[in-house]
Amino acid sequence: MKNKNNCIIGQSGGPTVAINASLSGIIQEILEKNLYGTVYGMVNGIEGLLQGKYLNLSSAFDTREKLDQLAMTPSMFLGSCRFKLPACEDAESIYTSLFDFFEREQIKTVFYIGGNDSMDTVLKLSSYAKIHDKPVNIIGIPKTIDNDLPLTDHTPGYGSAAKFVATTLLEIAHDTYIYNIPSVTIVEIMGRNAGWLTAASALARTSYSPAPDLIYLPEVPFDKEQFINDVKKLKERRKNIIVAVSEGIKDKDGNYISASHLAADAFGHKQLCGAGKALENLLKDALGCKVRAVEINVLQRAAAHSSSLTDLHESVLIGQNAAQLGYEGATAKMMCYQRVSDSPYTLEVFSTDISQVANQEKVIPRSWISKEGNDITNAFLEYAKPLILGEPQIPYQAGIPDYCNIAHLHQKGYFD
Amino acid sequence: MKNKNNCIIGQSGGPTVAINASLSGIIQEILEKNLYGTVYGMVNGIEGLLQGKYLNLSSAFDTREKLDQLAMTPSMFLGSCRFKLPACEDAESIYTSLFDFFEREQIKTVFYIGGNDSMDTVLKLSSYAKIHDKPVNIIGIPKTIDNDLPLTDHTPGYGSAAKFVATTLLEIAHDTYIYNIPSVTIVEIMGRNAGWLTAASALARTSYSPAPDLIYLPEVPFDKEQFINDVKKLKERRKNIIVAVSEGIKDKDGNYISASHLAADAFGHKQLCGAGKALENLLKDALGCKVRAVEINVLQRAAAHSSSLTDLHESVLIGQNAAQLGYEGATAKMMCYQRVSDSPYTLEVFSTDISQVANQEKVIPRSWISKEGNDITNAFLEYAKPLILGEPQIPYQAGIPDYCNIAHLHQKGYFD
Repeated sequence: MKNKNNCIIGQSGGPTVAINASLSGIIQEILEKNLYGTVYGMVNGIEGLLQGKYLNLSSAFDTREKLDQLAMTPSMFLGSCRFKLPACEDAESIYTSLFDFFEREQIKTVFYIGGNDSMDTVLKLSSYAKIHDKPVNIIGIPKTIDNDLPLTDHTPGYGSAAKFVATTLLEIAHDTYIYNIPSVTIVEIMGRNAGWLTAASALARTSYSPAPDLIYLPEVPFDKEQFINDVKKLKERRKNIIVAVSEGIKDKDGNYISASHLAADAFGHKQLCGAGKALENLLKDALGCKVRAVEINVLQRAAAHSSSLTDLHESVLIGQNAAQLGYEGATAKMMCYQRVSDSPYTLEVFSTDISQVANQEKVIPRSWISKEGNDITNAFLEYAKPLILGEPQIPYQAGIPDYCNIAHLHQKGYFD
Repeated sequence: MKNKNNCIIGQSGGPTVAINASLSGIIQEILEKNLYGTVYGMVNGIEGLLQGKYLNLSSAFDTREKLDQLAMTPSMFLGSCRFKLPACEDAESIYTSLFDFFEREQIKTVFYIGGNDSMDTVLKLSSYAKIHDKPVNIIGIPKTIDNDLPLTDHTPGYGSAAKFVATTLLEIAHDTYIYNIPSVTIVEIMGRNAGWLTAASALARTSYSPAPDLIYLPEVPFDKEQFINDVKKLKERRKNIIVAVSEGIKDKDGNYISASHLAADAFGHKQLCGAGKALENLLKDALGCKVRAVEINVLQRAAAHSSSLTDLHESVLIGQNAAQLGYEGATAKMMCYQRVSDSPYTLEVFSTDISQVANQEKVIPRSWISKEGNDITNAFLEYAKPLILGEPQIPYQAGIPDYCNIAHLHQKGYFD
């Protein structure tokens, strides 16, 4: 019998390679257990929905094959937005318009997959529903390569980004070790206020390669003199030095270590560029040896060809659990990972009140960073190691990965 | 019975992910067929050998497992150099020193794996041997991600770099398509005078993604006005535009399109930086929309985790053939690929006189570039497609690739 309760899923924020895995997990669980009637998808998150843009996911993903391909496709199948939902008292018409839509389409649950700012949307929508007694449940599913959400052991998307950063760092080390001339290579890694992804570069260390030799994180105030001394000291005993640095390093006054181009996005976050380049110039002046800065750039959030199987599996799992929880009538929740044990690594999914999470950032504990502030400790390594394990069998077609059609929104006129 | 004729192998120039595959192929063939007594390796190419640095490869790679791991390891196991061998009349002592060493160690064949500049070394050494009647054969094995060597259908290393560029370009497209705001992404790809690798970005095109929408190569003089017009015209019908640009684009007077930092290496090549950044600034002024430049950087020559199986197989094969040819007494040769047929793609290895090759660059034929100079034609696609096919099973350990110890030269004191 046709289930009359429908649901809708949205994706928001920056891309990761696992955000479609969570989308796939939600749809899988719903179709398999017939939890809802129709599964809709917002186009470009809440912002697109406010323009009346949505689509039917039940019919788009009617086979297991399509859902499996979706789970390995980087970026967001539903498109994204960077839209800050205004407070209800400032823009009630936005809320009435959304909840009128939910009522009209018999939508009982909204699943919203995103990072910090998306959880703010989950909080606001669920508060509105509660105050106005609307029969709509709102569930947040985390995702971010930054791994900066509280309460969850880690975030979907982080493990794959960490794996790509570590793999890349090792390969850059290979590129560096071959000349008998001194060099310093600075690798700039994403992370505005939390250094989780930069710290993951330490997973590149092998029995033969100590790279990265130095790691600088936003959690510790960056001191230029100390940095130059760190490199000088290492140069006495090592020919080729590799430094991992977060794009978000700041001096003791909180100013970013980067030269220029600081603009702010809708959430007031400053767009960074150039921490690596700034350190390159600093060292060139101070050392006079070969120095180069490498920016891994958007690849760290897009390189699905190097995904972590653990991350993809968990991201599907958290989506499946979200579907079940929504069906059971929970609301104002964010799904979380709980690590049950380190060895063997086991994990469970639970949920937490969204008010505990929204608008908060989790940074690396100071005790997981070396006393000198230029490396991480073993505690971090033990934490991060399991998250990058396993390599999925990405399907290839004509020598490149065979992903889902991510341009379908363009082709179907949603972006006109 | 112990074979008394020894040989030595050197690696030189910039890294690729397939240069150790050719090294592995040479050693495999020699050990399997007992072609030589001891296989030596120069440390840091000819430059290191002149300082008396070499090692024993027969004992280092005494199992098939080790040789297979070597074949999948990026960069150069033997280290590299960027050393221009002076002409004999300017530095005879260098040549007598080298050939005294060959005589002392009973070295009958020198295998030198490298790009354009390394083939110059092969030419000079073999000319000296001929003139001075030295019983030493010199064989060149090509490698370069630039694919700019003449006579060979393509070069070892190119297919893997092309596969990484195409894969990455597709993943950058995924990163780009999700926002409903106009944007231009400029992807800067390696290639000083030849645009082969930038052209390979076209292999990223799928049934759903036309990226890259525009391709600019060093083979065609770059015109800023034309470029801005190309982008403006596309913007009328496409929201997110992706441009692939070679680091080596030049204006009609031969000046590089990049702002600053032009230094020259030992071969007089200018070190480039910033073609992508230069175009970004150009478009920001002209269009006023979101523009970002992405540099793929050293990853395109180091990302062995994304190797082309075809490239690795062929690179081993060309090494095996070189070993056989050297054993048979040939000299002053460079190994080449000949494409026997396109469909099915089949290939043979042959050799050519080194004098035909050294100090020449092969660029993309003008007929393989669109009339407007902003794209490639189908003829290029047909040529390049087979080269990126197949994915090797890279072994992983703790979530990162399990490569050969590339830092062994550091650890054994060769770099002190």
